[in-house]
Amino acid sequence: MPKPVTPLLTTDAVILINNNKDLVLIRRKNPPFQSELALPGGFVDIGETVEQACIREAKEETNINIKIIRLIGIFSDPKRDPRGHTVSIAYLCEPKTKNEKPKAKDDAAALEIISLSKISSLKLAFDHMKIIESSGILNNLN
Amino acid sequence: MPKPVTPLLTTDAVILINNNKDLVLIRRKNPPFQSELALPGGFVDIGETVEQACIREAKEETNINIKIIRLIGIFSDPKRDPRGHTVSIAYLCEPKTKNEKPKAKDDAAALEIISLSKISSLKLAFDHMKIIESSGILNNLN
Repeated sequence: MPKPVTPLLTTDAVILINNNKDLVLIRRKNPPFQSELALPGGFVDIGETVEQACIREAKEETNINIKIIRLIGIFSDPKRDPRGHTVSIAYLCEPKTKNEKPKAKDDAAALEIISLSKISSLKLAFDHMKIIESSGILNNLN
Repeated sequence: MPKPVTPLLTTDAVILINNNKDLVLIRRKNPPFQSELALPGGFVDIGETVEQACIREAKEETNINIKIIRLIGIFSDPKRDPRGHTVSIAYLCEPKTKNEKPKAKDDAAALEIISLSKISSLKLAFDHMKIIESSGILNNLN
């Protein structure tokens, strides 16, 4: 059998900090959506679980050790990434300890910590606004 | 940037029929796990959503038009498939109409409709027993 070709697999982290009042976003260093705001995340490597990839990417881009709270969902619209078909598995996350030091690293040009009340007015890369809305964290904001 | 290499993406369907009393399984035609019982499913194609792939694979293997009830979860243990690292997204499903005609097709050597009360005594391919257990359908059986 020829080796199957499937969409590339990615993961994204919705990281709540400061008593669930703020969200951690990065400003993208590279295309596509260069310089735009996005969720921390990236491609899943062969040999790691999707949860491990989410934790690794969050650490690489934001310096935060995270723990996963729950799965948000699967985002697989073939048009969601201009580079080609990617499928993202998104998780709701929080810092693993109270001593994490958020800092832009790796593919992140900058890190931004933004109040949940401001999120809906932003323009985000990919379908990341849809991911955040699906997580439910913007519901019941005052 | 070199094209990323990620795990292959698959989907599996836990299809309840006969008033949620029975489960639809297939007997695999091809290796790995040739002739063993498994959930209907297969690789996600470029250009389709994961939900579309699940519906397509169920039709191709069982002749049943399904609708998805809910996501069961993500199964991404690098050892779950002896061919290499695959990640499966599993859905709980049911027939779309009362007129579906289950029949083994495509990669299925045979189709078996098995009472939920008998499932836990079976040996299934891959981690499909874990997927079924995660779905909750075996809880509270008399």
